Amino acid sequence: MTLAPIHPVILCGGAGTRLWPASRRNQPKQFALIIDGLSLFQHAVRLVDAADFAAPMVVTGVDQRFRVIEQLARIERTPGSIIIEPDARNTAPAVLAAALHLAQHDPDALLLVLPSDHRIADVAAFREAVVAAASRASAGDIVTFGIRPVRAETGYGYLEMMDPAARDAALPQTLVRFVEKPDAVRAQAMLDGGRHLWNAGIFLMSARTLLTAYQSLAADLYDAVQDSVAEARLEAGLTLLGKRGWLKASSISIDFAIMEKAHNLAVMPFSGRWSDLGDWDSVWRDGDGDGNDNVLVGDALVFNCQGSLVRTDVPDQMVVGLDLDQMIVVATNDAVLVAPRASSQQLSKLVNDLRKMERPQADRSRRDHRPWGWYESVAVRDGFQVKQIVVSPHQALSLQSHNHRAEHWIILSGTARITVGNSVHDVDGGGYVFVPLGAIHRLENLCDEPVTMVEVQIGSYLGEDDIIRYADRYARVGMS
Amino acid sequence: MTLAPIHPVILCGGAGTRLWPASRRNQPKQFALIIDGLSLFQHAVRLVDAADFAAPMVVTGVDQRFRVIEQLARIERTPGSIIIEPDARNTAPAVLAAALHLAQHDPDALLLVLPSDHRIADVAAFREAVVAAASRASAGDIVTFGIRPVRAETGYGYLEMMDPAARDAALPQTLVRFVEKPDAVRAQAMLDGGRHLWNAGIFLMSARTLLTAYQSLAADLYDAVQDSVAEARLEAGLTLLGKRGWLKASSISIDFAIMEKAHNLAVMPFSGRWSDLGDWDSVWRDGDGDGNDNVLVGDALVFNCQGSLVRTDVPDQMVVGLDLDQMIVVATNDAVLVAPRASSQQLSKLVNDLRKMERPQADRSRRDHRPWGWYESVAVRDGFQVKQIVVSPHQALSLQSHNHRAEHWIILSGTARITVGNSVHDVDGGGYVFVPLGAIHRLENLCDEPVTMVEVQIGSYLGEDDIIRYADRYARVGMS
Repeated sequence: MTLAPIHPVILCGGAGTRLWPASRRNQPKQFALIIDGLSLFQHAVRLVDAADFAAPMVVTGVDQRFRVIEQLARIERTPGSIIIEPDARNTAPAVLAAALHLAQHDPDALLLVLPSDHRIADVAAFREAVVAAASRASAGDIVTFGIRPVRAETGYGYLEMMDPAARDAALPQTLVRFVEKPDAVRAQAMLDGGRHLWNAGIFLMSARTLLTAYQSLAADLYDAVQDSVAEARLEAGLTLLGKRGWLKASSISIDFAIMEKAHNLAVMPFSGRWSDLGDWDSVWRDGDGDGNDNVLVGDALVFNCQGSLVRTDVPDQMVVGLDLDQMIVVATNDAVLVAPRASSQQLSKLVNDLRKMERPQADRSRRDHRPWGWYESVAVRDGFQVKQIVVSPHQALSLQSHNHRAEHWIILSGTARITVGNSVHDVDGGGYVFVPLGAIHRLENLCDEPVTMVEVQIGSYLGEDDIIRYADRYARVGMS
Repeated sequence: MTLAPIHPVILCGGAGTRLWPASRRNQPKQFALIIDGLSLFQHAVRLVDAADFAAPMVVTGVDQRFRVIEQLARIERTPGSIIIEPDARNTAPAVLAAALHLAQHDPDALLLVLPSDHRIADVAAFREAVVAAASRASAGDIVTFGIRPVRAETGYGYLEMMDPAARDAALPQTLVRFVEKPDAVRAQAMLDGGRHLWNAGIFLMSARTLLTAYQSLAADLYDAVQDSVAEARLEAGLTLLGKRGWLKASSISIDFAIMEKAHNLAVMPFSGRWSDLGDWDSVWRDGDGDGNDNVLVGDALVFNCQGSLVRTDVPDQMVVGLDLDQMIVVATNDAVLVAPRASSQQLSKLVNDLRKMERPQADRSRRDHRPWGWYESVAVRDGFQVKQIVVSPHQALSLQSHNHRAEHWIILSGTARITVGNSVHDVDGGGYVFVPLGAIHRLENLCDEPVTMVEVQIGSYLGEDDIIRYADRYARVGMS
């Protein structure tokens, strides 16, 4: 039998506060957490970047679409398609939309559903496992991937097999049942028993198999998402799902909606390194430690430390740990966190407390991705703010003005077409433009290279909400 | 008897690495450590800012003179005199120079010698103790001040009195002897015995008494420093000690040279709060803790922490501690330190290690004080650097050029006279000037207000050593 092509479906919604301060609401974990120079999303794309796989489909939210495009461009990968959800509805509608989209062209195609915020370090072993599971999937089963557990983890769901020997099988095995997150005693028993694997949320099956499962197990959801896919428009390379149908779909995970009810399930054992990087403790565990089990990222130094994670993404600030034991230190340019590794699980509560205190750091990072590119506030001092700004090729900032600040723009590279009042100039690297307080202005990048620039804002009030938009290609007029 | 006036002598040399990263070689502890909005030096000045005292004499090094002037100006205090040492020779020559200087006008005047890097929180009680000691000092004794110990400290020298009851005396007591830094057992015995006080390095005596002591106990030193004072010139309000004599003076502490040999000694007990702030542990101890003994400085937050010091001087970066127990976290804009409080003593070694690694953060902070004012590198990124610059009234940067960078100057306040090539302009707040790569340029502040500005440097190399000086009122031509 000739195997159907395998189409990776990378699920790229969700945020998560347990990796604060590196991850924020405007800086979700899959884009923010950098390991070996790549974000988790980029690692996921690279994981399935092989001859056995078609170009990936990415399912993401409307706010994250430019992030996806930018991160794909940075690793020079072209997606099969980018499917945009009108809003976040958990994984069941997202996977269904991808399956319907794919079935339009090839109902026998296989879908490999992958979260974008996990990490599989053993790339070759994983690809082998996927290929080994393909004929079972083509034959009509839903193949889940089960990770061989290495500790009595209480934070994951488990997959139960018939017998311990199955853990070492090179082909999919019968799945007896899903097991909910256990308590510590049960987790230890499962670890010792050898018949249980961690549920990694990775699935392989044909589009046809999956659609049949949705039709019989979640008929309302199927109808709603089918309407949404039928209404979808292709715009600038993005598949925008229709809002009308989507809003009728319930927000539910694929595990609850389908997997835990389906009967044609199999499990493919995988014993390679995997991590959900669900909190800083697991980021530490996933990292490559020094001789004393310290994991260092960025300009981090340790003296006489053990079992600690010291991590910074600030390019001009060193972080030094002295005599630390099982600690985490995470620095970003607007927040530093120091805690015992054992307190990693307390972070969601801490971020909630910061929200109650109305600290902007709870949800917003100082680097902000916009439709036209990104900016980072690199320094805020009394009376001025400095931003580094990158405008993507053929993008433009809105026509705008400010009531409380003047702006000095210094172009570092690229060529910017700059409008201030009635004058329009093309400004190259090394050039400068002054935008007086109140002046209507715009910056456009008409070229194929990014425009990079430094903006120095001067004024008594420098908040992001001091912006009046007159025209905006991203339909943000009237928004701050 | 009418009391002679009391002239405070504030000793302002020395650096110290045990408060890294807040204190550096170019940012000595007495200027860098900010408590309640004032540096330790400023606290020392305020300590003796009362009717009982004459305006203080400040003895400092040539590199620190502008720092002293600036910090005095910021608290609007006028010194009696600022005596500049040609180089650092420990405390004995410094105190002698002050005594000789004062004796020229009034040999019966009293000198109150004070370190600038300690902290006395109980200002009123201290002033009372000084006044209470004045007549004994006027009568010809050298009165040392002894702090009632509150723990078995092994890091200080001790002063021994006749009997425990003397600790509560309101007048100077007989000093039996100086005790060197003890071991833990001896320290505990002294604490329990009640006859010992900490030696705080504070002395009160007449100029005449002190000069007599130097003449008999350190005659060579006396001659050398007397020559230096005789050669001294008054320049721009500073008393510059003569180099010829000074270089003959040996580098020795006043404790070794005079105090431990003199016979006309008394000790004034002081039971108020005092700290030498010798390391982060003692900064923590000196601070006002929250209900869980956490000391927080700057934008620092703690959740479920105990006995920890969390301190930042970065205005736009929050530091958050979670579940910390007896830890220190100190953040500056180029370095963050995290360590157990118990490891405070290891910092000198750590800084030495950083030096061996040639990390600039070991010795230099990103804020640098110059003869003309100060600058701070607020952000360094790929291809550009942003500096905040403040030029003091009637000061000027050297006439200079750079081989590898262009500079964009944005004036925030004040009026700068700016020379670029052959053109000279006066630029006000909001104004902008471009300095092309290689252009000869200068910035002068001819006015009574500081010039504050933002400089954006653009170039492939942005090091401080890319500077060619053509003319400099601070005699730095040919220096980088």
